[in-house]
Amino acid sequence: MSAELNFIGRIETPYTAVKDCPKNIQPDGPLCRLILNHEYIEGMQGLIFGQRILILYWLENTDRTAVVQSTRQGKAGTFALRSPHRPNPIGAAVLPIESLENGQITVRGLDCLNNTKLLDIKPAVYHES
Amino acid sequence: MSAELNFIGRIETPYTAVKDCPKNIQPDGPLCRLILNHEYIEGMQGLIFGQRILILYWLENTDRTAVVQSTRQGKAGTFALRSPHRPNPIGAAVLPIESLENGQITVRGLDCLNNTKLLDIKPAVYHES
Repeated sequence: MSAELNFIGRIETPYTAVKDCPKNIQPDGPLCRLILNHEYIEGMQGLIFGQRILILYWLENTDRTAVVQSTRQGKAGTFALRSPHRPNPIGAAVLPIESLENGQITVRGLDCLNNTKLLDIKPAVYHES
Repeated sequence: MSAELNFIGRIETPYTAVKDCPKNIQPDGPLCRLILNHEYIEGMQGLIFGQRILILYWLENTDRTAVVQSTRQGKAGTFALRSPHRPNPIGAAVLPIESLENGQITVRGLDCLNNTKLLDIKPAVYHES
């Protein structure tokens, strides 16, 4: 069973090779831009400066068969890791909006390659346990 | 441009109709079970009781063309809402693990229908801004 994703835009980051990408989100990292495809620009309406958003993106050239992986600490299951190698390689980051303009949202410190495909943006929700 | 998702399991919740689903995650809500397909059970290795996980799931029977939506507060863009009606209807929740057993993870308070398709589980990461 499967489902189809549609890309809604792309992400501009400073990273053109996987080896240059940080291992995780860096809240004090460089500025990155979420660029929405033309038909989705109106979907930004209501987002505001400083708001924390959940950004979902599609990681390419990954191993989608990885169930158990080797790490520096030994073997671990894919679902206990944030590795890009996973059955559905969806990257997720929660970051505040640094700036907004028509069809573009700037955030700081994403960990993905330049031109990574954008899947979704939604307001982040937290619950302290 | 598009990509294909593979379902890794399903989610058991008490909700059999959309009208019964809560509007958002409820940290004190009922117990729900993430049930992994057999081939992914080893991927749980390393997850621990109490750990906060990001759960991604696939919302069905949604309007994937919704770019601007009517809300009680007026019109808003899809990306400023957590509505299931969006180009890629991926639900996201961050919750602590209540219990673990072979191939099953229990959490509390998901907002989705019983038998919702599971896409991914990964350790949640926070950054205070």
